[in-house]
Amino acid sequence: MKKGCKFGTHRVIEPKGTLPQPAWKIDNDMNIYDNEILIDVQTLNIDSASFTQIKEEANGEVEKIKEIMLGIVEKRGKHHNPTTGSGGMLIGTIEKIGPALEGKTDLKVGDKIATLVSLSLTPLRIDKIKEVRKNVDQVDVEGKAILFESGIYAVIPKDMPENLALSVLDVAGAPAQTAKLVKPGDTVFVIGGTGKSGMLCLYEAKKRAGITGKVICLGTREESVNRVKKVGLADEYIIADATKSVEIMEKVKEITGGKMADVTINCVNIPNTEMSSILATKDDGLIYFFSMATSFTKAALGAEGVGMDTRMIIGNGYTKGHAKISLEIMRESKELRELYEKLYA
Amino acid sequence: MKKGCKFGTHRVIEPKGTLPQPAWKIDNDMNIYDNEILIDVQTLNIDSASFTQIKEEANGEVEKIKEIMLGIVEKRGKHHNPTTGSGGMLIGTIEKIGPALEGKTDLKVGDKIATLVSLSLTPLRIDKIKEVRKNVDQVDVEGKAILFESGIYAVIPKDMPENLALSVLDVAGAPAQTAKLVKPGDTVFVIGGTGKSGMLCLYEAKKRAGITGKVICLGTREESVNRVKKVGLADEYIIADATKSVEIMEKVKEITGGKMADVTINCVNIPNTEMSSILATKDDGLIYFFSMATSFTKAALGAEGVGMDTRMIIGNGYTKGHAKISLEIMRESKELRELYEKLYA
Repeated sequence: MKKGCKFGTHRVIEPKGTLPQPAWKIDNDMNIYDNEILIDVQTLNIDSASFTQIKEEANGEVEKIKEIMLGIVEKRGKHHNPTTGSGGMLIGTIEKIGPALEGKTDLKVGDKIATLVSLSLTPLRIDKIKEVRKNVDQVDVEGKAILFESGIYAVIPKDMPENLALSVLDVAGAPAQTAKLVKPGDTVFVIGGTGKSGMLCLYEAKKRAGITGKVICLGTREESVNRVKKVGLADEYIIADATKSVEIMEKVKEITGGKMADVTINCVNIPNTEMSSILATKDDGLIYFFSMATSFTKAALGAEGVGMDTRMIIGNGYTKGHAKISLEIMRESKELRELYEKLYA
Repeated sequence: MKKGCKFGTHRVIEPKGTLPQPAWKIDNDMNIYDNEILIDVQTLNIDSASFTQIKEEANGEVEKIKEIMLGIVEKRGKHHNPTTGSGGMLIGTIEKIGPALEGKTDLKVGDKIATLVSLSLTPLRIDKIKEVRKNVDQVDVEGKAILFESGIYAVIPKDMPENLALSVLDVAGAPAQTAKLVKPGDTVFVIGGTGKSGMLCLYEAKKRAGITGKVICLGTREESVNRVKKVGLADEYIIADATKSVEIMEKVKEITGGKMADVTINCVNIPNTEMSSILATKDDGLIYFFSMATSFTKAALGAEGVGMDTRMIIGNGYTKGHAKISLEIMRESKELRELYEKLYA
């Protein structure tokens, strides 16, 4: 059995010398190296920005969606959307564990796990697409995947349905980072607060900002804002197009009495919302971009352009304890869990 | 005289409702609004990533460079490179000040200033390109530009040549942010440490990390690394291709005895260096991306992909006092000033 690199560089086909994520193409042969884990894949959870793009390209037609997805994996050896640059995650059962991992991993053959590393670096083979669940970005397949030694994962909890856990784990980084960033008394502005990651961020923000803080939710549609309002996830609600930066600024100014937000969390999966984030935030505030549609240059030049000293953080999908923190929300809030189950599971 | 918005939204032609920076096209008519400042432009300092792209597209031919630059301004009303998304800055003399700014600004007609907001949002008219200084990314022109009310600027200091001040101010955000991020005892890794912003970052890093810290400079070419070595800007030097993440990681591991960097500052103007930054940094370290060639998704997914909890910051070109901090370096270090004058002025 061949010896593999911790980060999976042995799977990179082109360009050589890079890691599997930035690589254009990786090897998806399912004979494992000595430090790899083979997974029998059950469900792919496609990144929201990626799946939105695929659905648009396919005009919403299921057969065309399948074709595009199979094409991506065929070309790249992984489900790494070339347009959005993003991936997603998967759920499956451990089929084989490389001997070099013995004593290093708690996993055993037969465990059901969710991989918490992106599909954009995970060797994947799809034998058949069984079902496309368009509204929840989930696709059931027959196929295999590889988890590298450095790859993170979570064993699926037994006290909630699999699809619910998968939906929560897919965006686990966002609420966990929110929990770490928000301090008591903070005014927190969540852009895209009615979405999959946004709702969890609202929940954590409200919990951490506490009674002296203020949490503001921005959503595009009245229907989805009302949904969130019913669960009481925020203190204030704005219904507006997230790309209309000047309008957003005026509304946040009104709600905060001109003080603006201490922390802004951007979870909306559409482009051109950098400036709304910047203008809604205090000069010495902090912006956390979790959206994969964020443009680095638009954020950097945007803040400079309006002379704002705002700290802007690139949303890292991983932070210590993120699976634990996010799954716990489903246990804490019965109302949010019910809503989440209805929408995403 | 027409009343203008603080941020210059009155100049946006398309798409409406956005700010001048994200806008595709802005109005470069040189009749000023009541809160605008008219500048007689002398020199454009094109952003390094942008100018590298333009030079490549022009195969290095000066006439072709001029044509591309005029084309950009013709199409967009600003020098906003559509490929890189970045701008640059300019130097010029105040020609007219809108009456609404009376008592609000210290500037007077005749002052020579550098604008510290990006060219990617500055209304610009180029009447003639007089000289292209290819090696310093500077272009002398006859033309006019507009500074908005929110626009930041620096009056050119009298104790150093203009072109030197302009080169320093162009990258002022990077050393000023470095000064704020680096703590005594830190191990600091500067990627692209031999470049225009990199050298200033090295200087600030060494000053702030102090005798108990360690500053590591990464450069691509032996010649430029030797230049920096002669001035003694770093404690350790690596000569390598910044895109070779695994190689870079091994070298930083060796130098730090496996501890890796506390703070990594990425100043290199080439794509695909996100992973090198991540692998060279401690799991709980901090990465500051100043390079405009940074890809948001590559950074976000890259860190997640290797299970790293690293905090990654989007380099904001502006931070309070940035002009003062960076110009002061030229007064503090005679050696660095000499090198800077030779290379960039």
